[in-house]
Amino acid sequence: MTTTRLESFSDGVLAVAITLLALSITVPDPVPGQSLAGALSKHWPEYVAYATSFMTIGIIWINHHAMVRRLNAVDHVILTLNLVLLLFIGLLPFTTALMAKYLNAGHGQNLAAAIYSGSYLLMSIAFSAMNRNILFRKAHLLGVDLDERERRRILTRGVTGLGPYVLAVALAPLSAYATLAICGAVAVFYALPIASGGDISTT
Amino acid sequence: MTTTRLESFSDGVLAVAITLLALSITVPDPVPGQSLAGALSKHWPEYVAYATSFMTIGIIWINHHAMVRRLNAVDHVILTLNLVLLLFIGLLPFTTALMAKYLNAGHGQNLAAAIYSGSYLLMSIAFSAMNRNILFRKAHLLGVDLDERERRRILTRGVTGLGPYVLAVALAPLSAYATLAICGAVAVFYALPIASGGDISTT
Amino acid sequence: MTTTRLESFSDGVLAVAITLLALSITVPDPVPGQSLAGALSKHWPEYVAYATSFMTIGIIWINHHAMVRRLNAVDHVILTLNLVLLLFIGLLPFTTALMAKYLNAGHGQNLAAAIYSGSYLLMSIAFSAMNRNILFRKAHLLGVDLDERERRRILTRGVTGLGPYVLAVALAPLSAYATLAICGAVAVFYALPIASGGDISTT
Amino acid sequence: MTTTRLESFSDGVLAVAITLLALSITVPDPVPGQSLAGALSKHWPEYVAYATSFMTIGIIWINHHAMVRRLNAVDHVILTLNLVLLLFIGLLPFTTALMAKYLNAGHGQNLAAAIYSGSYLLMSIAFSAMNRNILFRKAHLLGVDLDERERRRILTRGVTGLGPYVLAVALAPLSAYATLAICGAVAVFYALPIASGGDISTT
Repeated sequence: MTTTRLESFSDGVLAVAITLLALSITVPDPVPGQSLAGALSKHWPEYVAYATSFMTIGIIWINHHAMVRRLNAVDHVILTLNLVLLLFIGLLPFTTALMAKYLNAGHGQNLAAAIYSGSYLLMSIAFSAMNRNILFRKAHLLGVDLDERERRRILTRGVTGLGPYVLAVALAPLSAYATLAICGAVAVFYALPIASGGDISTT
Repeated sequence: MTTTRLESFSDGVLAVAITLLALSITVPDPVPGQSLAGALSKHWPEYVAYATSFMTIGIIWINHHAMVRRLNAVDHVILTLNLVLLLFIGLLPFTTALMAKYLNAGHGQNLAAAIYSGSYLLMSIAFSAMNRNILFRKAHLLGVDLDERERRRILTRGVTGLGPYVLAVALAPLSAYATLAICGAVAVFYALPIASGGDISTT
Repeated sequence: MTTTRLESFSDGVLAVAITLLALSITVPDPVPGQSLAGALSKHWPEYVAYATSFMTIGIIWINHHAMVRRLNAVDHVILTLNLVLLLFIGLLPFTTALMAKYLNAGHGQNLAAAIYSGSYLLMSIAFSAMNRNILFRKAHLLGVDLDERERRRILTRGVTGLGPYVLAVALAPLSAYATLAICGAVAVFYALPIASGGDISTT
Repeated sequence: MTTTRLESFSDGVLAVAITLLALSITVPDPVPGQSLAGALSKHWPEYVAYATSFMTIGIIWINHHAMVRRLNAVDHVILTLNLVLLLFIGLLPFTTALMAKYLNAGHGQNLAAAIYSGSYLLMSIAFSAMNRNILFRKAHLLGVDLDERERRRILTRGVTGLGPYVLAVALAPLSAYATLAICGAVAVFYALPIASGGDISTT
């Protein structure tokens, strides 16, 4: 199978998942005597969680493209690893809604934060597993010439990227806010121009 | 019509259906005095049904590509058979949510399991019907050279794949859990590298 | 603008709309002492409305492709007419859900049927308006050579197709069932091989 | 990265967002003794908000294509600016639903109108920021030859387009209806053939 249809299907799933995120933003029911401003501001975790997940999925999309375009063709193992990656991305609208609902709920926020950052971590692990398979097991499918050191460098960079999510999960039992802050900081960091030396393709 | 737009439209429907599956995962409302862990663990059938349907749609996507790329062009009958196939795939978010809601509901689980596995079966029958039409009625549209024996082998393999779903439907009146287990096992089996000798294209 | 991105965006909207239809199928809440079979069978209008709208959108997709591939390029008027067409297609998940909910509701079914068939009619009018603009005002953009008679024949066939929907809307005040039956019959008719001499491209 | 995958991902997000708009149209529950016509007509703001947002997203799609096809390739900054643009477009189903729900709610309509028109304004600012970056910082990526004056003209036209939205936001505290009317008028204006001399590509 060529990479074209893999990319088009993955783009579709990513585009739907990223747009479904907005469904978890509450449109408060009008309640006489209660201001809309107050009702909306109570839901601020939804806006933060939306922006964080939106940028994170967006960055995964950029990195996914950089990973796949190294290939001339894909085999069954790559397709399956890609499906597993998409499976975790497909969960993000759910875990984002969970995080947003429980951050200020008075209970359950630590578990919600662990699940939220955990879904990012699983997504990143699936990404690195797919990248590892492509770089070290599928040399015959690669369309670019990468020596051992270069391939190791790419993979290491991806695995290093897991660090903040491990930390975010580890901090979840202590503070859900810290977890959310770390996930948000990761999204902002990778969106900055300084990150463009990474997996992300610059022309 | 060339196959390009058939693929792009089908990819779109499959990508939306696979991502909508997550909408059926419940975000429990916070209830004071009730732990989130307890609320989430009660919904475990949703996670199993999600993963099973996700991988099943993913495998159908892989097989769909293998089926369509044998064609140089499509005619009205192929387009219609493809629409019927997509119609059943479009139902999966509904049947998956039904299965997940009733597995532990105390009643209705057998009917829900029959409908769930039945929707997989109908999807597979529609797939085989489309494949049969392509392989045996549309020789003039085929872009690859397949002799009678080879075509019969491809079709037989697809029809054989119906077996587990027939069994899953048949067992639904006895045990909804058995039905779910079979559907899950089929998804895992086809995701394993060993299945790649099947309809699935390896480079 | 080339037709490629018009097609890819339109395919996207059609794929999302066709897949969202399933969201209007009710997953009944488990009620102790009430059978799931009974709960599901009460919702039969949803299944009929789903299948009818699914096939209708699918046929519009086929015809849309046949219409657009006659073009080498598109201009602002074509883009706008296409947006209006998509606007009505985007309404179908709403009008389908409305029809399904009111068919057996005891009141409102005639209005719901008029809106349902009316949305099909508006969609078909928008389609014919776009086709008319392409065939008679945009000769310089056409990539195929069609004489006056041939263009008139194509447009007439499309306008003739409005007939059943006009009838379906007209019958809505008398019988919502008759309206639904006509819309369903149209979908079945165009899916049959006999209809392939129409706008639909056969290789 | 070539522009192809940027376009296909953006098309996907735009197609999903535009189609999700219809989810915010209420299918009223049947209430004995209450006419469906009355129930539907109470929801007229939803229809106006739907049509306005649909055409607005459609026009952004047209302009987005005109902007991106000037490029031969994209870099990290363009990808990030594009993500920010998509983030605001992804919010439109939410802000549209909010506007529709509060226009006649008796309270909160001014804030809802400010958020609604504000989301259009933010979307337009993100669009202009991306266009500015492309036209003035990414000369080496441009695939078309545009002199300074021409580039300034394109950007000015886009920034001028912000004017009506600034007015719509400014009027929100006075009249939510005025805000909605302006946003609707903008959508109608850009859909008219007269607007085609703008950013929109004619053949």
